[in-house]
Parts: sequence; C-alpha cells; structure tokens
Amino acid sequence: MPTTTVSSLLDGIDDVGRDTSRGGYSRGVHTEPETTLREWFRAEAARRGLAVETDRNGILWAWWDATDSREGALVTGSHLDSVPGGGAFDGPLGVASALVAVELLRERGVQPRRSLAVAVFPEEEGSRFGVACLGSRLLTGTLDADRARSLQDADGTTFAEAARAAGLDPAHLGRDEEATRRIGDFVELHVEQGRGLADLDSAVAVGSTMLGHGRWRLSITGQGNHAGTTLMADRADPMIAAAQVVLAVRRIAAEQDGARATVGRLQPVPGGTNVIASRVDLWLDVRHEEDAVTASLIERIHGQAQKICAFEGCRATLTEESRSGTVHFDGALQRTLGNALNRSFPAAPTLPTGAGHDAGILAAVAPTAMLFVRNPTGISHSPEEFVERDDADAGALALADVLEDLL
Amino acid sequence: MPTTTVSSLLDGIDDVGRDTSRGGYSRGVHTEPETTLREWFRAEAARRGLAVETDRNGILWAWWDATDSREGALVTGSHLDSVPGGGAFDGPLGVASALVAVELLRERGVQPRRSLAVAVFPEEEGSRFGVACLGSRLLTGTLDADRARSLQDADGTTFAEAARAAGLDPAHLGRDEEATRRIGDFVELHVEQGRGLADLDSAVAVGSTMLGHGRWRLSITGQGNHAGTTLMADRADPMIAAAQVVLAVRRIAAEQDGARATVGRLQPVPGGTNVIASRVDLWLDVRHEEDAVTASLIERIHGQAQKICAFEGCRATLTEESRSGTVHFDGALQRTLGNALNRSFPAAPTLPTGAGHDAGILAAVAPTAMLFVRNPTGISHSPEEFVERDDADAGALALADVLEDLL
Repeated sequence: MPTTTVSSLLDGIDDVGRDTSRGGYSRGVHTEPETTLREWFRAEAARRGLAVETDRNGILWAWWDATDSREGALVTGSHLDSVPGGGAFDGPLGVASALVAVELLRERGVQPRRSLAVAVFPEEEGSRFGVACLGSRLLTGTLDADRARSLQDADGTTFAEAARAAGLDPAHLGRDEEATRRIGDFVELHVEQGRGLADLDSAVAVGSTMLGHGRWRLSITGQGNHAGTTLMADRADPMIAAAQVVLAVRRIAAEQDGARATVGRLQPVPGGTNVIASRVDLWLDVRHEEDAVTASLIERIHGQAQKICAFEGCRATLTEESRSGTVHFDGALQRTLGNALNRSFPAAPTLPTGAGHDAGILAAVAPTAMLFVRNPTGISHSPEEFVERDDADAGALALADVLEDLL
Repeated sequence: MPTTTVSSLLDGIDDVGRDTSRGGYSRGVHTEPETTLREWFRAEAARRGLAVETDRNGILWAWWDATDSREGALVTGSHLDSVPGGGAFDGPLGVASALVAVELLRERGVQPRRSLAVAVFPEEEGSRFGVACLGSRLLTGTLDADRARSLQDADGTTFAEAARAAGLDPAHLGRDEEATRRIGDFVELHVEQGRGLADLDSAVAVGSTMLGHGRWRLSITGQGNHAGTTLMADRADPMIAAAQVVLAVRRIAAEQDGARATVGRLQPVPGGTNVIASRVDLWLDVRHEEDAVTASLIERIHGQAQKICAFEGCRATLTEESRSGTVHFDGALQRTLGNALNRSFPAAPTLPTGAGHDAGILAAVAPTAMLFVRNPTGISHSPEEFVERDDADAGALALADVLEDLL
C-alpha cells in the first residue's frame, strides 16, 4: 500500500464545517462539524491499526502500543476545532501529518521502544467557550474544572452542558494524573501562522518559543436609549467609549516593542440599529514575550478604559479569561528535532511563534516541541491561510524522522 | 361588564418574548413571540366583536363595520414587534389602547358614521430585516416588493421565507391599493420616547412632526489575520477603522444643531477573540428635521470613512437601507385631536418626535396623527421604558375622545 499523502487525507474533511457567510471553516468544539471531524479521526486511526480512546476531558488518544505500558509514551497530534471562518490547516494539518507519519514509520519497519499516541485536543482555539487550549488546560489542571464547567458559549450553553451532550461526564472534567503520566514527550506539528518560513524559503522549521498571551473581556455599561429621541448631549453611549478603547489598545501596543494587542470580537447589547446600546462587551487579546510587559500592557489598557468611561458616563469591568506565560520549548528536545530534520531538511531554521498551542500548556508536565510547516500567504485565522501539497508531505516526513529518533 | 384597563390587557402578554440576556423583550417580526402576540390580538379583537383579517403584507385589521363599505374608514393601531431588549409599551400600548377605546365608544353608545379598524403593522422597528416600518412601506409602495423579499435577517433568512412561514404568499407582497383606499384617517397612539411629557407634567400630547431619518450599513473590509503572529505595523485591521468611524459619527452629529447619529449595531467578521477581523459591518442611524441636512451629514460621514479607511489600508462601502423625510402631521387632524383632548386633558401639549412611526409612512396616502403617552423615565428602546397604569388609561380615554369625534 502506498503511503497516504497529507493532502489526500485532508481532502476527506474538505466539506466539513464550511462557513458560507465568513468563508473558510467554522468548527467549534462539540458542534456538529467538530463531532464529524472526531468521527473521521477515529475511523482513520482505526484504519491504521491504532486503538482510539476518549479521556474524561474529551481528548482523543489513538495508541500504537509498543509495550505493556503507556506511561512515558511519545505523543504527537494537534486539534480539529477552528476559529470562526478559519483555514483548512490550522489544527487538522498536525493531526493528518501524525497519521501519515505513523504510516511512514511502519513502512520503514521501525520497532518502537515505547508506545506512541496521536492526540486530538478539544477547544484549542477557545472560539466557543473563550478559553484557548481548554482541553490541555483541563488535563494539566491549569484551568479549574468548576470554572470550565461554568464557561458559556454565545448561546448561553455551558461547557458542562456541551460536554454532557458530547457523551462526557461533566463531574469528571479536570486534572487527569493518569493521562498526564502517559506523556513522556509531546511533539506538535502546525502550519506556521506568520511569514517566517515563506521569507526563509524553507518548508519546515523547529519551534523555539511561544509568545506569552492573555485574553480579557471588557464590559462597558452605559445608558441604553432611543437613537432618534435622545439628544447627542444627553447620551452615555458605551459604543463611543468602546471605540476609544479600541484605539487606545492599538496605541498602547504600538508603543511597546514586540507587543501585539487586538480587539477582534465586540458585541453591542441589545444591538439594534435604532438603539443606543446599554452595554458593549469587547475582548482583548494581548501578547508579549515578557510576561511582566503583558501585565503592564493590560494594566495600562484598563487604566485608559476607566478614564474614557468616566468621561463618557459609562462604567468598565475587566475580567481575565485566560493567561499563559511565554514558553521556551525544551532545549534537549529542540536539539533532537534539529538533528532529525538534518537528514531531509539540512537548512531547516528555528523559529518562535506568536500563536498559542497545546504544546505550550503541556510544557508544564512534559518536554514539548513543535514543528512548523510553511504557509505561503503568511496569513492565519483566515480562509487565506494555505499549505502547498508538497510542503504538507515534507512536514509529515520531518515529523516521521523526529518520531523515529524519539521512539 | 366594566371596561378593561389598558394595563390589565397588557398583563396578558407580560411573559411573551422576554429576553433574559438583554432584559426587556425581544419580539422580532414573524418570530415565535411576535406570532403569539398576533394570536393574542386576534383573540382580544374577536372578544370585542371585531372581524379580524390579515392582508397580503401581513398587516392585521380588526374591523368594526358601521356601513357596507370599508373605504375611507377611521384607522387606529400600532405595532407588536420590538427592538431586541425593548420595553413593554413601545407598540403594544397603542394596540391595547385602541382595543380599550373601542370598548369605551361602545359603552358610550357611539353610533359610527364610518367603519373603524384597529391595525397592527409588522416590522415597525426594522429590528429583524433592517428596514423600519416595513409593513406600512409595503402597503403604500414606498418600499419595492422585490427589495423587501430579498432582505435578510441575521441568520440569512429572507423576508420572503419568513413571510411564507407566516402563511403569506411572498409573490403578493407590495403596494395594496384596496387596503390603502380603506384608510380615511389614521391615528396612532404611542408611548413617548423622550422626556417631553415627563418635563411638562402631562399624561398625553398631540404629535406635531416626525423627524426625518435614515439607516445605512457601512461595511469596512481589511485583512483578516492571526492576533498573535501579525505585527502591529503589518495590520490592516477594519476594527481600528470602524472605531474611528464611530467617533467621527458622534463628532459630525454633535457639530450640527438638532442632529442625531448613532451606531448601535456593529459586527466584526469572523468575530474571534484571537482573530484580526477581515470585515466590520456597522449600521448608522442618522436623523435631522431638514432632509437636506440628513443627506449632508451622511455625506460627511461617508467622506470621513473613506479617508479613515484609506489611511488604515481598508475599504468602506456604504449602503442605504431606508430613508424617510420629516413628516408634518396633518394640520386639520391635529386641530381635531386638540379639540377632542380639551374635554379631558385641557392642557395637553403638542410635541414633535425624534422616533419613526408607521403614521409617518401612512401620511403619504391619508391624513395621519399621533397621540403620545407619558414615559416617566424618558428612556426608550430599553427595558427602562415605562408607563404608569393611570397614564395608560388616560391615553385610552384620550384616544376614545379623538375617535368619537372622527367617527
């Protein structure tokens, strides 16, 4: 049997969760499209002789058992959920590459000295319940199970309800010592989310660091009223305050070297054309390599929001939704990846990433590392994200080389 | 049988369409809550011996037939749909007051010389399909039927589909000569949407003018990308442009005497926390007594938006959704209302309104007039809108006096 190509494997889910209004894909965790992707993964893993399990946090594990024990296994994989209107590769590329890498290892006749698992982590994007890397945070205990259960999506469905609907027992969500002990090393392959590889003319890279980041919700309350009858001078319009905050966020980030701050989600309440909003909720995504700088950025933004709101007759409330420090991937594992890549990609560079990944969360419990695959557009979280077929296969080859050396 | 009070009648729909997340009521046209309200109206009208019909635009007519002909009838009524998170009185007060006024006229033994109808106009707020006074615009031909059919709600449902689901034939939407000829005079009672009556210490007022207004959608397109990997300097973020437009709208309106301009609805696409938006849609509500000033305001806003977008690497597209000139209610009818009110409310003032109403649209085909009932909070399009029970009954009494003189 010829080895599957990564692209042909991904072709099998090309139609799942297409978003006709935003473009690209919307595959929220535990929604119908993401459930279809999980079933696809189960079937493809089973076809490759892997034993699939779902743990109590909804993480899928497809096992190639080499010994009696799964403790200290080599784990690879990524996620299948997407941002709203995301690309085809963010997440699925790492999952499909892992399945193809298993085929390559089998073809090479590799005899593993320890077990290997391909894992799929739920809600990596945090697009449905607001907390990125929800699955790996629950697994490692970085996120309190009670808080996770009470998280709500835009329709008011709690994560506990969604988990129950997906066949999980919400009471059993949370830190999972047994599953954690099984992770000896974790290697995640991911499409690059910037233009590093495109500029360096290389198909693959080894990850060095993952930028620290956090998410906050800012609720601005004003006085809801009629858009036609309320004089401009009589208003306490939270949309006016929110607009000033959006601009302050950009200014504060631009003044700080290496900082990134974004308002990509903003919701006026009630949201009628002829209604002055009574409240505007907006979400802040703030990132910097130094965690102390991230903290000072959010402090400055909060201070500015308070000043703006005081002037506009509004009130602002800031709530932290998630926060992660900058992660330096394991040095020894990075060197192993570099040596393995030398066989087929001798000039493969080492690159940092501004995006968040489960590999960053899992670094708290095991050595972790990442491989990046070239994205010619440099654009991510957009339908314009792309991976050439040859680069996808190069990624799977690189991953197979890495796994072979680590098994 | 004692005459029903307006409040006791409204108590019957107190639970219909409550919005637990926004507060108040969300009763979008042809949604389940609004359908329930229509059934309630049919039943209450039938209980009062009125013959209920639905015309081909979905307008409800409850007839008190005094002669063989319905041509040139006296029509009163209002709407039952609401803005998202609106108050209990905006619309339903006029409908309930009309039903109570019919009871009062019967009690008084009034023998009408012409037929009377209580009408309910759909989508007065334009909250679901974007065009305010959709029912009366269709009836009078102010809105093209093809355009109405293709209007979409936030879920992508067209008005044609919603009309069909409500039992209407979408092919028959549009200008209705027969129904139009039946309107001899139209009087709409409505809760006041400002603080005019509260400040004047009066329960009711006669309407003088209705402020001209329009609604536009501004779509700002930029470059969607990843919030973590895209440097601040590399962005073409439409949210940044939208924020500047929101502030320009306020500044331009504040510089113009008597102008009101609002952004109450704004939607980033795709709307993920860790995603730089690729597009932001925002809706403008602009009003001024002089139509030429409204036109110049929107022109200035559009010009500013183009400048802002050029600077931010974005593009802006402006689309008019609806537009109405300032309406001066019929002078003779205003005097008749004033004289009728003199019996019970000798000091009733005359007030303009900044809000839009079906009475303004119907002014194109018949003499129209309005009665306003005091709102002690002065707040509208919000759960804080209010009417005291005594004021509601005063309004029904005033409406009965007016109708008696006009019948």
